[in-house]
Parts: sequence; structure tokens; C-alpha cells
Amino acid sequence: MKFSELLKGLTPYTAGEQPKNKKYIKLNTNENAYPPSPSVRGVLAAFDADALRLYPDPDASELKLTLAERYGLSPENIFTGNGSDEILGFCFPAFFDRESPPVLFPDVTYSFYPVYAALYGIPYKTPPLRADYTVDAACYSPLVSPSQGVIIANPNAPTGIALPLYGIEEILVQNRETVVIVDEAYAEFGGVTAMPLIDEYDNLLVVRTFSKAYSLAGIRCGYAVGQKPLIDALGVIKNSFNSYTLDSLTIKIAAAACRDMEYYDMINERIANIRDGAARRLRADGFTVLDSAANFLFLKKDGVCGERLFSALKERGILTRHFKGSRTSDFIRATVGTDTETEVFCGAVKEIADGILHGKG
Amino acid sequence: MKFSELLKGLTPYTAGEQPKNKKYIKLNTNENAYPPSPSVRGVLAAFDADALRLYPDPDASELKLTLAERYGLSPENIFTGNGSDEILGFCFPAFFDRESPPVLFPDVTYSFYPVYAALYGIPYKTPPLRADYTVDAACYSPLVSPSQGVIIANPNAPTGIALPLYGIEEILVQNRETVVIVDEAYAEFGGVTAMPLIDEYDNLLVVRTFSKAYSLAGIRCGYAVGQKPLIDALGVIKNSFNSYTLDSLTIKIAAAACRDMEYYDMINERIANIRDGAARRLRADGFTVLDSAANFLFLKKDGVCGERLFSALKERGILTRHFKGSRTSDFIRATVGTDTETEVFCGAVKEIADGILHGKG
Repeated sequence: MKFSELLKGLTPYTAGEQPKNKKYIKLNTNENAYPPSPSVRGVLAAFDADALRLYPDPDASELKLTLAERYGLSPENIFTGNGSDEILGFCFPAFFDRESPPVLFPDVTYSFYPVYAALYGIPYKTPPLRADYTVDAACYSPLVSPSQGVIIANPNAPTGIALPLYGIEEILVQNRETVVIVDEAYAEFGGVTAMPLIDEYDNLLVVRTFSKAYSLAGIRCGYAVGQKPLIDALGVIKNSFNSYTLDSLTIKIAAAACRDMEYYDMINERIANIRDGAARRLRADGFTVLDSAANFLFLKKDGVCGERLFSALKERGILTRHFKGSRTSDFIRATVGTDTETEVFCGAVKEIADGILHGKG
Repeated sequence: MKFSELLKGLTPYTAGEQPKNKKYIKLNTNENAYPPSPSVRGVLAAFDADALRLYPDPDASELKLTLAERYGLSPENIFTGNGSDEILGFCFPAFFDRESPPVLFPDVTYSFYPVYAALYGIPYKTPPLRADYTVDAACYSPLVSPSQGVIIANPNAPTGIALPLYGIEEILVQNRETVVIVDEAYAEFGGVTAMPLIDEYDNLLVVRTFSKAYSLAGIRCGYAVGQKPLIDALGVIKNSFNSYTLDSLTIKIAAAACRDMEYYDMINERIANIRDGAARRLRADGFTVLDSAANFLFLKKDGVCGERLFSALKERGILTRHFKGSRTSDFIRATVGTDTETEVFCGAVKEIADGILHGKG
């Protein structure tokens, strides 16, 4: 049986484990520590199962209108997809070519970007983060690296560090003729967003998700915001691939969630507080913790191997993530859980690190 | 702003209209005439909204196990996707190359196939259906047309005609080294399925959907069945694109539906009966109606333009579909609705055709 040539060269993205049997404190995939808005329960209770007979609205109009209202934009500025991953997967064929200069994204960032590049055969280059793991906007100038576009996760993953808005704007100004995709999967936890720049920059696409701040990873929904030509380009790719990417329940649930920002502001502020408290405590215990504007912490301790820390935590029933690679393998990434989960995590990681350092690990 | 070169060459698929305001008798997108299994209501009532906080099972194990049990296969023989369209969209990069001989599919078939080919830059060739709109299996021999794979919708769309199993097997035997994708979106309405050939042919992939026979177009779920290497290849593409394509509710709803075959056998037999009765009546009224094994009819009347028929029906509140193209433009395609809907449709289409033929239209 013949398979495609492409297939041989692909190494798929590895998502964090979703354990089915054993009960873990699950701090490995940056899900929200708190449940979704109570209005979601209302949608499920009111939903007419018989309506599932029909195809969903292919334009997800109810959701686009709700999002447009929230951001003071028009629905034509909004694209919706089956998670922000699908939207990123549409960005590559919409904006990038095989025969053009590379797409730029940092050497340490969301590890799905190079996977998309391989899938579509798009060249890419990874300007290094600074030694302190911050993004150096100057690296994204065409004078330094000619490119056909830039992808910046902001806050970045797995570091959690946010690039201030002037940094994003510097990248936008340097790349007026090519797209700058700002992946704001975690933006609601930190306050920096490029959303206010949409009107001014026709090369800005902001990508967002319902999986993190909205506590709705289970519904698979993301959205992108930008000027109409960018949104239309994504629409052409989507409609050349799958006419209905969002199901009827997802559209209704996401729209309902979006109308309850009071609830989400409350839980996400609480998560930011727990995060900052945990970072202080871990630093006091001798850990290096990067400044996180997301709902996770990226931490390490000198002399302690990240992979060993990950494994020992897993043995104790705490799932985190470890990323191979010279600049990340000393670290583990831990989602900010509830107060109790965070308490347990901080205690365990200290004990384990102490044990390893004192030869008992 | 630079967009991809690819984008300029794409003409997206046009899905049938999903009207939002006006109330139509909706016979344009081949949705099931009856509601989904009552067990779907049970899933919605029992579902814990708080669980949507977590990512879905990326393997959709519950659904794969249910399907595997039903077909006497192993879960490793089953791939699930966000509608069968997404699965077809993964087939192209999994099995086909830009630089290889063309993929073959009939000149009259599901009009999404050439759209995928354009999206991925895959060459294709369209052997014509016979004059009676049946598939000529001999056209799919590498001696006639060297190819890198074949796609056959069975029953075919928009004709509704099924190729008997020996025709499918002839194509499989002629193409031992390349994939034969049998798109069985409508198979449950007609009884012909290639599913029993899975064990024997490592080049056979059967693609199915929950949108038609399961009356669940609203949940976006499809599946493919084949030997493990084919399923694994689809998995590599999927995981290079989107880790979680099925949401938590969709997985549970599809699995519950799949456990209630008694209900579905009942409604789908009813639809087949209504279809056959309507075909007889329309033929008695002078229409040409192709032999349908699906939940729709493809019909025309000599001297009556298909597009005019479509428009006049729409004016009367009945939505059907019309396809341009020399071999399809005389026809309209009408989904088989309930008894009452079909009664109204048959009466209206006769009146309109008579009116046109007698100069009153």
C-alpha cells in the first residue's frame, strides 16, 4: 500500500496525557482550575436534542455576533474554529507558501507550530528567546531575518512570559506586508492583548481559545480576530476543508459562556492570585520560576533534572509536563490548580527536589 | 498584506443553505427526516457540564469501542473525525502526493473531492459515469488510467445510485497497491457496504458519517474503517493538525446513538419506503428518477430546466439542490422527507413542471 511521501516526514504533536483510569492532580494541559460558567448547564438543559438532526449554522453566527459585541467589532472580523489549533492549522495554507522566506517563531514556544510547518511544507526559522526567556522583538525585523510572517504566542508557552504590547507593536510595524499571528491562548490570565491594535494593523491576526480562560476545553472552540481580508482568507481554507467545523452544541455553549464575563473575570483573577502566591512560595524555596502571565508556571531547581522531577511528581499522583530540548529540559510546566491542588503541588515539588539534592531521591 | 499563492486558486465547496429565518420544507442537505435516537436526549440530561473544563479523550475511545463492537473489529481499525468531510480532508495528505499520477473519482460525484485536491495540490482525473449514471468499474483499472488512488461514493451523490459490491471489489482488486476510499455517507439507506471486505483488502478505507442515517448532522462526527496501517496514517495527519477534533459531548452522543440500532433501522427503513413510493409516483407523473439507494432522489423532467424547477420550489417554500454542470443541470436533488413533506414535494414538483410545460410557469 502506497502512503504519501509527506507522511514519512511527519512527527505529530504530542498532547498532554488525558488519564482515563488513575485519579491524578491534573496540572499537565493547562485546563482551567474552575468549572465553566453555570450558564453552560442551562444551555444543556434547554437544548432540543431533536435539533441535532440538522446541520449546524456553518457561520456560527450566534457566536460571532456575541464575540463581536464583546469586542466592539463586526462579525466579519471574527473567524471561529474547532479549537484554536484548527485555526492555526488554517493559517499556514492561508498565509504561507512553500517557496517563500521562512515563517518566524521563537525557539522556545508552542511546539505545534513546527508541526504545522512540516504538514504544509512551509519553511520556518526560530529566532532564540533572550537568555532570560523573553522575546526579543528586534529579531523579527525583515532586516535581520527576511520572513513571510511571524507567530508569537503571548503570553508565550511553556514559559508563561508575556511580551508587552509595545513589543507586539514593534513586530507589527516591522512586518507591515506580512501577517503577524498573535496566539493569545492564555491572554486572559495576564492582561496583555493585541486586540486594541486590530483596527490599526491589517496584518494582525489574534487567535484565542475557549479551552483555557473559559474553562471549556471539552467543547473544542477557538476564534480569531482581525481585519476582514484575513478572516476571509481563513474562510476560504476552512470551506475547502470542512463546511461545518463547529457543532450546534458548541456554538450555543460558547456563546452563553461569552455572555457571562463577570463569572470568568472572577475565576481567572482567582487563578492569577493563586499563581502569583505559588511563584513567591516556590522562589522562597529556591526554585527558579519564570514570570508567568498565564495559568501555568515554568520552574526549575539548580541541580535537579526536570525529567526526574516530572516523574517523581507523577508517581505521587501529580501530572505536570516536561519538554525535552536544551533550553527547556531543566524545567517542568505545572498548571495553576485550585488552592488545595497548588498547596499539594508546592509541597510535593519542594520535598522531591530536596530529596534529590540530599541524595535521597 | 501577503496571502498564500494557494489561496488565489481555491474555489471552496458550497454547502447547501441552512436557512435561519424563513421556514422551509428543507430537502436540500440530506438530513434525516426523523429525530435522533431518544438516547441522545438522555446523554444531554445526564452530562456533567463541569466536565467540559477538561479536554476530551483525544482517542475518542468510548466511541471507537462502541463502533468496533458493532462491526466485530478492533478499535485500532477505526478512525473518528469532525464529520466525514474532515476525514476525507485527512485522506488526501495521508495517501496522495503532488508528483504522482492522478487520483480517480467519477465526473459526477460529491463535489468536495476536487476541492480537497486543489487544497493539497493533488492531481485528479474524473472517469465519466456511464450514460445511465452508473459507475463503470473498468475505468478504474491502472491499465486504463494509472492512478495513486480511487474515491468512490457509494451510493453515489447526487445520483443516489449504488455500485454493487462486486463492482467495489473489482476496483479493489485492480488497485492492490493504492488506496480505494469508499465514501459510504448514505450506505445505511441502501444496504450495499464494503465493510465486510476490510479484512481481505489492506487498500480499502470505508468512510462513514453520523450526519445522515444517525440523524446527527448537528454533532459533526464521522468515522473511517480499515486495516491498521491506513488508520495509523490518518492518525499521523490528524495529530499534525489538531489533537482533539471531537468534543466530549459529540463522543458521548455518537456512542449512545450507535448503541440504539433498533431505532435507526426502523427510521431508515421507513425513509427507504417513502423514497421508493415517491420515486414510483414521480415516474408515473413523467419524471426521470434515478434508482436511489440513498435518502434523496435525483430527478428531472424532459423540457423542464432543473434550475427553474429548483427556483420555483424554493418560492413555494421547498428547498432542494441544483447542481450546475452538463450532466447534472437538468436535475434537482431532493432529500426524502417525512410522509407529509414528501407528499407536498411530489405534488408541488408535478404542478410546477406541468405549468412550465404548458406555458404557465
